[in-house]
Amino acid sequence: MSAEEALRELREYCRGMPPVAAMGVEVDGFQDGTLRLTAPLSANVNDKGNAFGGSLTSLMTVAGWGLVTLKLRLAGLKAEVYVADSQIRYLAPLYADLVADATFGEGQSWETFVDTLVQRGRARIQVEARVLLPEGGSATTLAGRFVAIAKR
Amino acid sequence: MSAEEALRELREYCRGMPPVAAMGVEVDGFQDGTLRLTAPLSANVNDKGNAFGGSLTSLMTVAGWGLVTLKLRLAGLKAEVYVADSQIRYLAPLYADLVADATFGEGQSWETFVDTLVQRGRARIQVEARVLLPEGGSATTLAGRFVAIAKR
Repeated sequence: MSAEEALRELREYCRGMPPVAAMGVEVDGFQDGTLRLTAPLSANVNDKGNAFGGSLTSLMTVAGWGLVTLKLRLAGLKAEVYVADSQIRYLAPLYADLVADATFGEGQSWETFVDTLVQRGRARIQVEARVLLPEGGSATTLAGRFVAIAKR
Repeated sequence: MSAEEALRELREYCRGMPPVAAMGVEVDGFQDGTLRLTAPLSANVNDKGNAFGGSLTSLMTVAGWGLVTLKLRLAGLKAEVYVADSQIRYLAPLYADLVADATFGEGQSWETFVDTLVQRGRARIQVEARVLLPEGGSATTLAGRFVAIAKR
């Protein structure tokens, strides 16, 4: 599957999930191992006029889930991808549209992940995601483990 | 402020936040130190037909935020409440409507929290939240620190 096809599939998945659609999530692109998603502030604003913590976390979680899903499709594999756990830090309020990047954690081996998935039908990988501040730096960070379960 | 007034205020806050309103969050009640929120599965479903991880986390985050906000209002204090960090565990998929409970973490002192807030204008407290499984046990758990900043 080409990157374009995998991105199109990911966009369809996102549109098909009501809470993700309600957030106005858009799949921006996949470049240099980083998946970028965006969402407008207007649909994700809290009582203080900045980005709602739950939306920030959701966007980072979908970015991490999307990264694993996309890479598996590019590798020609079909699997259900779940988030297993995550640590989230809220560093600074965000008063702009949400932009989230997700990459694999440092030292994570994609090859080991795929080998384990193929051999055991189940594998997990560490993902790091963040929401960017327009002035540089991060509004929030997520470190999470995602589990893939091979589809029979 | 009475508990009824504080709950009504919390419901208005929730309705005023577009992402929370989109999730269909309802403030169920506050009893024995536990705040309970609910949300329908239909608005929070993922591609696998169970509850979306981002919605589960959002609901637990709002429940924790709501608990601190509600208790501060009952104490007659005005403060902005923010989530500072959280650890989330996804234990089992949920195929039913979402019900989240939030309480203060074990060993947390509400009195110390209030004293610190009044004296220093800022304080933090640990909250524990979970989404219940209809058959018993938890679908997801959240342990998080919430910061209150006194309004001048």
